[in-house]
Amino acid sequence: METIGFHYVVEAAGCDEEILQDADRIRRIFLEAAKAGSMEVKASYFFKFSPTGVSGMVIVAESHISIHTWPEKRYAAIDVYTCGETADPEKAVDYILDAIKAEYAHVSEIKRGIEEDDDTFTHMILTWEEKLDRKNGK
Amino acid sequence: METIGFHYVVEAAGCDEEILQDADRIRRIFLEAAKAGSMEVKASYFFKFSPTGVSGMVIVAESHISIHTWPEKRYAAIDVYTCGETADPEKAVDYILDAIKAEYAHVSEIKRGIEEDDDTFTHMILTWEEKLDRKNGK
Repeated sequence: METIGFHYVVEAAGCDEEILQDADRIRRIFLEAAKAGSMEVKASYFFKFSPTGVSGMVIVAESHISIHTWPEKRYAAIDVYTCGETADPEKAVDYILDAIKAEYAHVSEIKRGIEEDDDTFTHMILTWEEKLDRKNGK
Repeated sequence: METIGFHYVVEAAGCDEEILQDADRIRRIFLEAAKAGSMEVKASYFFKFSPTGVSGMVIVAESHISIHTWPEKRYAAIDVYTCGETADPEKAVDYILDAIKAEYAHVSEIKRGIEEDDDTFTHMILTWEEKLDRKNGK
C-alpha cells in the first residue's frame, strides 16, 4: 500500500450526551462509519469508563478510526486515518459527526507519509472549523 | 478524566526494515512503550499485511497508541495520544523511535480537548523534525 494517507483529527462539541456514554451504540456507529468510508474492518474494541465516557477503536485494513468521549462535556475526540485510494475517510468523519449529533467540529486534516528526496517522510496539516446544522432534529 | 490530552503524530524514517515487518516484535515494543509512558493497557491488536507491513494498536486507559509500517520504505506512521496527568506520552514516543531504530522523525504535537468559553473544543499544533543519532549501533 502506498505511504500517503489522510488522518482527520477532530474535536467534536455539542454532541448528544446519552450517545456518548453508550459503548454499544458508539461501536455500531463506528462499524457503520467504516462501511460508509469503504474500509475493511479487521478488529474493534470499545469500553466504558466508570462512571462515564467511552473509548473505542476500529482497526481497518487501511489504518484505524478511534474515539474517546466525555459525555458530561458533550465532547468527543475522534481520529480517522486511512491510506490508499479505495477508502473515503471524509465520509466516515461525516457519518460519525452526524450520528453523535455534534454541533461543532474543529478539524485538522493531516496528509501523512509524504516521501521526500532524502528518503525522509513528512506530513502537512490543514485546519478548519465546522458549525453543523442540527435544526431539523437530525 | 480531564479533556486535555497530548497527541503525537509521528512520521518515522530510516527505521530497521526487519523490525518493521515483525508483528510480534512490534507488539512487544508497543507494550513496553506503554509501560515506559506510565499507561494502563486495556487491549492490543497487531496484524501483518501480506506480503509486508504491520498494523497495530494498543488501547490504554488514557487513550491509544498505534503504528502502521512500510518496511520496504523503512517508514512507520506512529500515533501516541494520552489524556490526564499520569501518563508521559513523550517517553513512549522516544521508546518506540529508539526500538525501531528510526534515524529521522517528523513530529506534530497536538494539544487536544482545549475547552473554549462557548463550550466548543479546539486543538493546537506544534511541529518539529528530529535527526536521531544511531552511530553507536543502537
